[in-house]
Amino acid sequence: MNDPRAVRRAIRSRRHTGHTAGLAPGYVQGNLCIVPKEHAADFLLFCQRNPKPCPLLGVTEPGDPHVPALGEDLDLRTDISSYRVFEHGVAKRDVPDIRDLWRDDLVAFVIGCSFSFEEALMEAGLPLRYVEQGRNVPMYRTSVDIVPAGVFRGKLVVSMRPFTPANAIRAVQITSRYPTVHGAPVHLGRPDLIGIEDLSKPWAGDATEVRDDEIPVFWACGVTPQSVVLDAKLPFCITHTPGHMLVTDVRNVALAA
Amino acid sequence: MNDPRAVRRAIRSRRHTGHTAGLAPGYVQGNLCIVPKEHAADFLLFCQRNPKPCPLLGVTEPGDPHVPALGEDLDLRTDISSYRVFEHGVAKRDVPDIRDLWRDDLVAFVIGCSFSFEEALMEAGLPLRYVEQGRNVPMYRTSVDIVPAGVFRGKLVVSMRPFTPANAIRAVQITSRYPTVHGAPVHLGRPDLIGIEDLSKPWAGDATEVRDDEIPVFWACGVTPQSVVLDAKLPFCITHTPGHMLVTDVRNVALAA
Repeated sequence: MNDPRAVRRAIRSRRHTGHTAGLAPGYVQGNLCIVPKEHAADFLLFCQRNPKPCPLLGVTEPGDPHVPALGEDLDLRTDISSYRVFEHGVAKRDVPDIRDLWRDDLVAFVIGCSFSFEEALMEAGLPLRYVEQGRNVPMYRTSVDIVPAGVFRGKLVVSMRPFTPANAIRAVQITSRYPTVHGAPVHLGRPDLIGIEDLSKPWAGDATEVRDDEIPVFWACGVTPQSVVLDAKLPFCITHTPGHMLVTDVRNVALAA
Repeated sequence: MNDPRAVRRAIRSRRHTGHTAGLAPGYVQGNLCIVPKEHAADFLLFCQRNPKPCPLLGVTEPGDPHVPALGEDLDLRTDISSYRVFEHGVAKRDVPDIRDLWRDDLVAFVIGCSFSFEEALMEAGLPLRYVEQGRNVPMYRTSVDIVPAGVFRGKLVVSMRPFTPANAIRAVQITSRYPTVHGAPVHLGRPDLIGIEDLSKPWAGDATEVRDDEIPVFWACGVTPQSVVLDAKLPFCITHTPGHMLVTDVRNVALAA
């Protein structure tokens, strides 16, 4: 499926129930985080203060499940193939739609995802090993504090991609053009300096080999806001299930600075 | 002296005979390389093929010592405080002007210098240790072949500046905006991969400490074309004496992409 509207229709009608990687190539996919209005102002402030892990693509009005700027027909209650429902910081269940859970006080945050800058990297000819190997990107919880806001606080989560030094420099240049989807790396070359003891043991995702002529390059990861929301043990919160992203009508190239 | 025209007048009248570092802040300084017309086409091609070490700011017509684009009154025979004269690849002497050596067949190449991007780095708050310590930047001859043209061939020379990983990423972003003064780094983090065995033993300049929380970042160096011209053992060639640069009327910010 190359058209984002067709992808969303297929998800809405449950004809597509799986991951969204590779669907609607060229279009932005986003992370979802839904919190009650009571916590929305703090979460918005948290995102504003931590734009690298939490680049905001859209925020809804309380009770409104639509984000026309990301897709005219887009309905956040039905257009993601799997939602994860949390209570007091604990994942309770994954559900294929949230129409019956929707409330007038819910505010949805759509947060940029690395798929957009990875497409730009691949178009520039930079190899992404974890994609070539059909695995997940390795993610690490660092020792780097994120800037707190209200109940939201914690450590930065990063994703890692190995590159030769020359390609790492290219990757900085390319991803710098995409500030709304994590932008430039936050770190490179020395995992120990950000509290990563062992690259072969990611906190999430799959370990990726760093070859002898390569250095690890670290980007702020969209898992950070989810990790922070869970740590805050909000009574109620909904996210997408990992890999089941929101497919939008915005073109990746439209995000390029 | 803050005005580039005043600097050149002082040099021309021998009131200033020293280095040019720190003079006319905000204005581009350039490397000079003068070769006979017979070799000029090859040297131009060499620069075109190796824009990172050899970013051209100006090329004269044979016999014409002026480059109006870099300064209306600029005279390449008198406006550098010290010239180095080479014969068959050997430095013969340093002289304060080259009016009596000038010939109708000489072509001058003005090549960008790292002073311009260093100013941008410092304005962004990135510390340059060798500047703080009043020393010269360390330079290394690498194992990286440059693209040959005619008699010009050899290895890339790089300069090294240590940064924390986060500042290294900022340095890539900032210097990427200055392609005509070497641009983005060519390498970082792993000197061994480009044939540098020991950072404490630079090929030229002064060794600079790389602290435990830093990585070395390498830029293509404007010494590369000089090194290549010398290796080619041209019967006759004139360059500036290291540190005695050509001060131009072009503002550094005007070079920013």
